[in-house]
Amino acid sequence: MTKLLIIGAGRSATTLINYLLEQSITYKWQITVADVDLNLAKQKIANHQNATAIEFNIDDKDLRQSVIQKHDFIISMLPAFMHMPVAIDCLTFGKNLATASYVSKEMAELNSEIKKKGLMFLNECGLDPGIDHASAMKIIDEIESNGGAITSFKSYCGGLVAPESNNNPWGYKFSWNPRNVVLAGQSTAQYLLNGEIKFLPYNRLFKNIDVINVDGYGNFDAYANRDSLSYIDVYGLKNVKTMLRGTLRQLNYCKAWQVFVKLGLTDDGSKLIDTNLKTYSDLINAFLPSGNGSLKQRLIEFVGNEWDNDIELMMEYLELFSNKPLHLSNASAAQHLQALLEEKWKLNTTDKDMIVMQHLFEYKNKKGELKKVTSSLVVVGDDNINTAMAKTVGLPLAICVKNYLIGIFKEEGVVVPIKKSIYEPLLIELEEKGIVFKEEYN
Amino acid sequence: MTKLLIIGAGRSATTLINYLLEQSITYKWQITVADVDLNLAKQKIANHQNATAIEFNIDDKDLRQSVIQKHDFIISMLPAFMHMPVAIDCLTFGKNLATASYVSKEMAELNSEIKKKGLMFLNECGLDPGIDHASAMKIIDEIESNGGAITSFKSYCGGLVAPESNNNPWGYKFSWNPRNVVLAGQSTAQYLLNGEIKFLPYNRLFKNIDVINVDGYGNFDAYANRDSLSYIDVYGLKNVKTMLRGTLRQLNYCKAWQVFVKLGLTDDGSKLIDTNLKTYSDLINAFLPSGNGSLKQRLIEFVGNEWDNDIELMMEYLELFSNKPLHLSNASAAQHLQALLEEKWKLNTTDKDMIVMQHLFEYKNKKGELKKVTSSLVVVGDDNINTAMAKTVGLPLAICVKNYLIGIFKEEGVVVPIKKSIYEPLLIELEEKGIVFKEEYN
Repeated sequence: MTKLLIIGAGRSATTLINYLLEQSITYKWQITVADVDLNLAKQKIANHQNATAIEFNIDDKDLRQSVIQKHDFIISMLPAFMHMPVAIDCLTFGKNLATASYVSKEMAELNSEIKKKGLMFLNECGLDPGIDHASAMKIIDEIESNGGAITSFKSYCGGLVAPESNNNPWGYKFSWNPRNVVLAGQSTAQYLLNGEIKFLPYNRLFKNIDVINVDGYGNFDAYANRDSLSYIDVYGLKNVKTMLRGTLRQLNYCKAWQVFVKLGLTDDGSKLIDTNLKTYSDLINAFLPSGNGSLKQRLIEFVGNEWDNDIELMMEYLELFSNKPLHLSNASAAQHLQALLEEKWKLNTTDKDMIVMQHLFEYKNKKGELKKVTSSLVVVGDDNINTAMAKTVGLPLAICVKNYLIGIFKEEGVVVPIKKSIYEPLLIELEEKGIVFKEEYN
Repeated sequence: MTKLLIIGAGRSATTLINYLLEQSITYKWQITVADVDLNLAKQKIANHQNATAIEFNIDDKDLRQSVIQKHDFIISMLPAFMHMPVAIDCLTFGKNLATASYVSKEMAELNSEIKKKGLMFLNECGLDPGIDHASAMKIIDEIESNGGAITSFKSYCGGLVAPESNNNPWGYKFSWNPRNVVLAGQSTAQYLLNGEIKFLPYNRLFKNIDVINVDGYGNFDAYANRDSLSYIDVYGLKNVKTMLRGTLRQLNYCKAWQVFVKLGLTDDGSKLIDTNLKTYSDLINAFLPSGNGSLKQRLIEFVGNEWDNDIELMMEYLELFSNKPLHLSNASAAQHLQALLEEKWKLNTTDKDMIVMQHLFEYKNKKGELKKVTSSLVVVGDDNINTAMAKTVGLPLAICVKNYLIGIFKEEGVVVPIKKSIYEPLLIELEEKGIVFKEEYN
């Protein structure tokens, strides 16, 4: 009887846990769900016959090792920076591991030892990274097997709010970690554009955006991710002249966010000494040059030509010019901003989130003709628990763990879902679950 | 016989070691100079009768503790982030400690325990912080004891190059840690201006500068330090409406440095994936938007109206548009920039550095009249070993340690040189050594 351990029962684990519990009937698995919050773990297994909930503290080394030793396959749904102690224990005790996170440098360094023990540490197997890799590689492999050569690849993904729940001018509500949204992009983005390596620092990131169109959903802003260049090798794109991975936001979001960047409101490096700051208008005032006129007038003057009605609506919506009190003390500007946005961009009970992903390929076919393919995915959540985010992060990982356990693919070492043996059955099963890419060739 | 331990025999320790060796004759001290590099330590003590050189690794806990236990007063000339293990050992074994560094949060937290043991941990006792505190407090105390109230205090300091050695258009050569110069200012500056708290983020720091004049030396640029606000309490300036501490550079330096900030060349958060980058012009190109025209023309277009002849001269001097090769691999933009500047801004053997400090006070005297005082210091180094930087960092610390040991002042806990009992004898002795402030009242 195969024993699975799922560490972390938070929001993004819901779909994964449900899927694996369902499969456990067919495949006779025993599943342990471990979380610092025992009640949360219990709630997630809902008295399932094959499941046990346990209280688990990742920092309790003895507990962690004794629990890991008793299982065959470990799934870590912890935040990315917490995976390593689990990975090292998995290596020590000869257990397989799966995460949805980017392969860290430390994880990559374990590769040869993992292989030596015949283990698989599956990573980057959620949404982005995850579904993006699988769906992109499917098209790349198709084009190349038909004698084509990819010259340009742009890939965008965003966790947004569904049109029916979009009732704020930013077109954004939090379906994942708010802190990551506020701090997004704070180191130089690196990509390839028409054969030239391009570096884009934070102060220009939200000004240099692409606008993409998704059929039936309109236009979206896209800003460049930190690292696009290393995926040239990962995807084996030898002939590529443009390689860009980006993050989607609703149209016009980026120009308003750039106002925060220019002001300095997203800085997390200094705790503000805020003795005399009581309200958000005090905070904005402190970041603006002194002058006459209302706070809003001075902000408009500060922003200059880039100010427009869209930005004005977005700023008004956040009550930035009001006497809305600051609640945090000894906080950074980014923390004050996050506190406000968590209130204003809350995903309410009946709100639906939305995942949008789009790949844009250009390639030369074997006749030398320039061709394009666009592959787009839209997934809408059910409500604020069964979010599109939870589905698209949890299902790929759960499906790949199942496929590995039942022998559909076999891999060793540090693995990401870019091989046909992994992505093909994954994409087929995702389609069955309604996660379907729409491909347009022209 | 009092036993002093000096940890760290690097460049900034030279003057301190020489001073204490000299005093050791009078006061019969035994001095140990400890460094990872035994030869460097030996060289610094130059067979002095009262001194011993030892090899010392701060990470070797047993060695560190056994050496500290054998001494009465410990002087740490280590980089600031290395002081804490020494501080904790000093507390454990009941030894006094002195450093030239800012009081860290961790150091401040030891205060009550240090007091309980009757010890003194003297900090911020170099140049800036150090001489700035002492010289400012002297004037503050004078004004207040005459019934005046300080309404504005601006204080600037810079480690620059002396006019006679200034042969590059930046007017800058490295007299201290180049990395700190390249990364300076990367979190929000906080100060008080005409009664309003002001926050200035990195993207605007080098654009919002003050220009100050020092008699006989002309004008200098000044950009705001990270933290000016907490010195309102430290200096007890209850009535102050303006409180700004800043860093000096030669006139026009800041507008050219802002070009690097805008480009993204000072970012240290990402290692650049630089497979195709061979030269500095490749690097600049990667940070510039694509376009026609020469690299220089495109940089000029990118910078826009702010470009001028001064900036052009400075950029040309650095050979930024040339095929000068990049030497580092797997480096951040900031590291590539630093490597270039270390070559171009090298303080040569016969070069003289220069310290400039200026305090600008405004106050109401007891008649209610608005008055001003300006207090300025210029110190020129002898050569690239006996720098003004080494003198002004090392002498205050050495003098205060001596004054404490011979009973000129008595303090307990975490101490900075703001009390009259400390700063008065310090400033007198600094004057004897040629470190003299010029005060102008009007």
